Amino acid sequence: MKAGIIGATGYGGLELIRLLSVHPEVKTIRIFSTTEAGTPVDEIYSHLNKIAQTELEEIHTETMKHSLDVIFLAAPAGVSVQLTPQLLGGKAKVIDLSGDLRLKDPAAYQEWYKKDSAPLETINQAVYGLSEWNGEAISKAETIANPGCYPTAALLGSGPVVKENLVIPGSLIIDAKSGVSGAGKNPAKMTHFAHAQENLQIYKVNQHQHIPEIEQQMNNWDRDMGAVTFSTHLVPMTRGIMATTYLQLNKNKTTHDLLELYENYYGECPFVRVRKEGQFPCTKDVHTSNYCDIGLTVDERTNRVTIVSVIDNLMKGAASQAVQNMNLLFSLEESTGIQTLPVYP
Amino acid sequence: MKAGIIGATGYGGLELIRLLSVHPEVKTIRIFSTTEAGTPVDEIYSHLNKIAQTELEEIHTETMKHSLDVIFLAAPAGVSVQLTPQLLGGKAKVIDLSGDLRLKDPAAYQEWYKKDSAPLETINQAVYGLSEWNGEAISKAETIANPGCYPTAALLGSGPVVKENLVIPGSLIIDAKSGVSGAGKNPAKMTHFAHAQENLQIYKVNQHQHIPEIEQQMNNWDRDMGAVTFSTHLVPMTRGIMATTYLQLNKNKTTHDLLELYENYYGECPFVRVRKEGQFPCTKDVHTSNYCDIGLTVDERTNRVTIVSVIDNLMKGAASQAVQNMNLLFSLEESTGIQTLPVYP
Amino acid sequence: MKAGIIGATGYGGLELIRLLSVHPEVKTIRIFSTTEAGTPVDEIYSHLNKIAQTELEEIHTETMKHSLDVIFLAAPAGVSVQLTPQLLGGKAKVIDLSGDLRLKDPAAYQEWYKKDSAPLETINQAVYGLSEWNGEAISKAETIANPGCYPTAALLGSGPVVKENLVIPGSLIIDAKSGVSGAGKNPAKMTHFAHAQENLQIYKVNQHQHIPEIEQQMNNWDRDMGAVTFSTHLVPMTRGIMATTYLQLNKNKTTHDLLELYENYYGECPFVRVRKEGQFPCTKDVHTSNYCDIGLTVDERTNRVTIVSVIDNLMKGAASQAVQNMNLLFSLEESTGIQTLPVYP
Amino acid sequence: MKAGIIGATGYGGLELIRLLSVHPEVKTIRIFSTTEAGTPVDEIYSHLNKIAQTELEEIHTETMKHSLDVIFLAAPAGVSVQLTPQLLGGKAKVIDLSGDLRLKDPAAYQEWYKKDSAPLETINQAVYGLSEWNGEAISKAETIANPGCYPTAALLGSGPVVKENLVIPGSLIIDAKSGVSGAGKNPAKMTHFAHAQENLQIYKVNQHQHIPEIEQQMNNWDRDMGAVTFSTHLVPMTRGIMATTYLQLNKNKTTHDLLELYENYYGECPFVRVRKEGQFPCTKDVHTSNYCDIGLTVDERTNRVTIVSVIDNLMKGAASQAVQNMNLLFSLEESTGIQTLPVYP
Repeated sequence: MKAGIIGATGYGGLELIRLLSVHPEVKTIRIFSTTEAGTPVDEIYSHLNKIAQTELEEIHTETMKHSLDVIFLAAPAGVSVQLTPQLLGGKAKVIDLSGDLRLKDPAAYQEWYKKDSAPLETINQAVYGLSEWNGEAISKAETIANPGCYPTAALLGSGPVVKENLVIPGSLIIDAKSGVSGAGKNPAKMTHFAHAQENLQIYKVNQHQHIPEIEQQMNNWDRDMGAVTFSTHLVPMTRGIMATTYLQLNKNKTTHDLLELYENYYGECPFVRVRKEGQFPCTKDVHTSNYCDIGLTVDERTNRVTIVSVIDNLMKGAASQAVQNMNLLFSLEESTGIQTLPVYP
Repeated sequence: MKAGIIGATGYGGLELIRLLSVHPEVKTIRIFSTTEAGTPVDEIYSHLNKIAQTELEEIHTETMKHSLDVIFLAAPAGVSVQLTPQLLGGKAKVIDLSGDLRLKDPAAYQEWYKKDSAPLETINQAVYGLSEWNGEAISKAETIANPGCYPTAALLGSGPVVKENLVIPGSLIIDAKSGVSGAGKNPAKMTHFAHAQENLQIYKVNQHQHIPEIEQQMNNWDRDMGAVTFSTHLVPMTRGIMATTYLQLNKNKTTHDLLELYENYYGECPFVRVRKEGQFPCTKDVHTSNYCDIGLTVDERTNRVTIVSVIDNLMKGAASQAVQNMNLLFSLEESTGIQTLPVYP
Repeated sequence: MKAGIIGATGYGGLELIRLLSVHPEVKTIRIFSTTEAGTPVDEIYSHLNKIAQTELEEIHTETMKHSLDVIFLAAPAGVSVQLTPQLLGGKAKVIDLSGDLRLKDPAAYQEWYKKDSAPLETINQAVYGLSEWNGEAISKAETIANPGCYPTAALLGSGPVVKENLVIPGSLIIDAKSGVSGAGKNPAKMTHFAHAQENLQIYKVNQHQHIPEIEQQMNNWDRDMGAVTFSTHLVPMTRGIMATTYLQLNKNKTTHDLLELYENYYGECPFVRVRKEGQFPCTKDVHTSNYCDIGLTVDERTNRVTIVSVIDNLMKGAASQAVQNMNLLFSLEESTGIQTLPVYP
Repeated sequence: MKAGIIGATGYGGLELIRLLSVHPEVKTIRIFSTTEAGTPVDEIYSHLNKIAQTELEEIHTETMKHSLDVIFLAAPAGVSVQLTPQLLGGKAKVIDLSGDLRLKDPAAYQEWYKKDSAPLETINQAVYGLSEWNGEAISKAETIANPGCYPTAALLGSGPVVKENLVIPGSLIIDAKSGVSGAGKNPAKMTHFAHAQENLQIYKVNQHQHIPEIEQQMNNWDRDMGAVTFSTHLVPMTRGIMATTYLQLNKNKTTHDLLELYENYYGECPFVRVRKEGQFPCTKDVHTSNYCDIGLTVDERTNRVTIVSVIDNLMKGAASQAVQNMNLLFSLEESTGIQTLPVYP
């Protein structure tokens, strides 16, 4: 297979280079950039020195779509809106890591992203790439809208209870915490080491663009779910997301009942690990891996469920889930090339 | 004034040494330790080298209570249960930084702390030292139960809306995050650098001993409040607590209304800073200081209030609030010795 | 006293605001900025919210020099070259925290700073503010060239052995390590959290502008010293400098001999703490304080001395040494306003 | 191949599990522990949950040496002294990651490690596993003494100039800095997060047990080298070592000359990357990889060479170099299973 990466010098793109370079079915990786074409990538990123000396190429959608098998778009919001329509129609399949193709309602995209949306046709064609839940649709798709990092953690965490219509509408709150790499590579005050270290910051309160993405999928599962409360915090670490989800059930269930339900849903999924009663994951449990780990408990004092789900935001929250989706698209074993163990410590 | 510190080699005790050493009204500081008596404190902590060379003394409650004006207890849970009754009855006033005297219900103490409680008389005598709310009672007390770090952040954050009976019972959730110093100085796997750095951990889910302390005060303010959901996370930083509180109102209020209410409550408090609409504090805003900063917003989509309150867990969450209470006890200006600015960056 | 700070929104300037706000002899603090005049400083830095609401003023050197007692220049290199000549001649004394006035040789400034130097007259008038060594000259100065952060750590560390002409010329190597705040507040790739955390970087190898500053002072002490090797590393922490110095002696000396020598030099200095044999300081020993801690040892296997000196780069390495110099200039007790204990943990 | 790991629950052992689990030639991994036999490893380390559920076994050297092809010893100093003699004589080859078999002089081991040394026969049989330098001897060995983390960085860094007899004896100084994982998993004050974060610590000054290991190899290369000065610092990061080496040449050489020499030595080595003139590596360039990156420069002012070499201490400094040696031992491609790219950011 021949793979192309647009936006290869962002954090998501760099992880794609790392993963695809050891993927047994990928023979060629070409990388593209509008701003840095002509430069060998290892001049920009010294960790790639002498390993990935490929030059960044200019984007020519017409030739790319006929010569490549799969194209990953790892560019900021707005780029995929323009490029995806041009990249379809050849042999290449498109996996978009941005938020451009995730929202089925163009008005919602415009409201939350403050940008023009993609053509309706392109949006409709895109399959939401939450691998564990949409595997069948993914395997038949032309375009994948790879999920956001926060939505991946949040949706895998509460999927089973929402899908089973067990949640009281309006009761669901997701308090999410992310490492700083989630803010991207562009230097800014908020991500300056001297500001971000030994600091915990809340940001975009009630205004994060991942809110409509989470609600869309939850309402697909249970059309009565309505709005959710979702908060995002910046934690002084590079990688990792933890979503702490609070909700109330419309039926009496014990912790044991819910864990059984989760095992039914995820028991066959190679990358979701449900913890035993009384145990909860930390972000380091999944560091640099494609795993999503989940722990949960029912509090008898408050009759409220607490669900803890963790991922690596650049892996399961971006690049490795994109590769998982590529595997599904090309009828490969789902875990090909991404079955590495978490790095610890 | 002559001050004594029992448990001076814990993190809270060290901060007391630092603060009292520049307090204009404190002329003498004596430090006590059961396990390390006879050792100069600067042999244990090199940052005190040649500055605080005081030797740790053995604890003799009888002589201490007659020779000291104020005794700070900064020992682990269980110590104050034993010592406080012995330290009362002389001239010394007691400020206890542990959880031993905070819960008015001995059964609750035994349930959450898994230890024998203090005598009922001692408990009843102790005034809960939430400085901004109990100033008058504090100024007349013999014994102060200095609040826990998490309760300080949580209670200052939601005090005004709870006191005004604006909160729907059962709707209040506090998602709290703390720096690692909150776990104390004893080395353990959870606080090992290689484990805790680049990691976010949730712990004691629904079982933290600060839950009954928060509920007790909230029910003092509004006896219909009932149970609250409270979660604690360990953030890879040394200091700082952020409490993100979610709740639903029983009346229609805008963000502007609530900020006005908070200004009414806290406008005269030198150490509580309420942010303007649209602004939220980060933990570094209060680093190494006695401040508690608060931001809040009402989400019209979900009809839910989000309150963000931050403190330095070793300062406003322990030592500097204890000094603030000492000031109140001895009719000094509330901010004496603790009006230093936050350290940034 | 009335104090002014030019460049108040840099890290050094912010520390000056913090220190001067509790200095007992400073009644007024005015802050100046070319780029942000008209803005209250607490709109830029939220940790100052409601505490330091002073507005940043435009710089008018003529009125400043007559109305202020002391002016701190905490601006980037090049600014002081322009402003200092204009600020002199009134009643104000000038303390410059930049490197502009430190080098007595204009050609050296131009070579290492790649900028035009200050007028020779201004340079000649400036006294190098290494407080522990130049106290007498400082107390009579009109202008102080406050030392750089690295030179402060390096020079205090090896001062006594160099001054005693004990060092073999050419044998001295300083391997210096600094926290990230030393790189200033401007966001850049090198200081982006996701790049700098879990990373150790060497930079400006043999090209750091502090090299001629260190050599100048060393050659003042011992005119045979010649060139020194000096390296700088960026450590994933916000504050702190450690200088590990290696040198060879021209006489046989034991560790005990050298420690005695150091005690002779520094025994009366309130802010220099020499460790006992076998003990070495860490940067946290001096965190947020004006202390410089020193440990040393003679290795009999290699006949080489290792000296370890640590400071807080923003305090003794910038702002608090500037205040120490202000105290000396105005005949105040040297430690006024800066005798606070290091913050730990 | 069947591999066994003794001491599998230390940081080095965990990395071996991670690497061997994806090594294409290793079919079976068995793990051994004296203290935790009978426990599934994923009960101790939750990042291995449901992936590596292998139970820790008791150590039976007699059966192990006949049933396994290769045995990794990743235990603390002193264990291998006992076990290695018992593990030899069957079909298993032994790769020891501790310092027990590295020093050819038993007296040196006893002096620096304060323990009884291994039998002379065992020591003599062990080949020092510095892969890039001893490849041929390694490929024929029965026992490999895998190099220490610091020596790997230091020796790869200065190997070519020492081997070419270019270094003035006594001039070589290695200022080394390591992440905290190098101190092992046992909790202690020095590695407590609240102490180690925002802190830089020097330790074991002139007394580190890696000193004789470095000197032994250097004297193998150039028998006039004599003693070296070697210092170790603990940096607030989990992984990574940087060795900054200073030395003087006995011949005039430019930076360009030396880089050419290094390219001659390392040009064919897949895991050593020599940087271009003016460029120096940071530890993140090799994070979680088997690479050693090297930059160097000659300073004309001081006539001194500065060499910067970086590795991941748990990988090239322990586990992945052990796998590289296993590959060499079993005539596999040197990079089998360890050719993954560094993780960034």
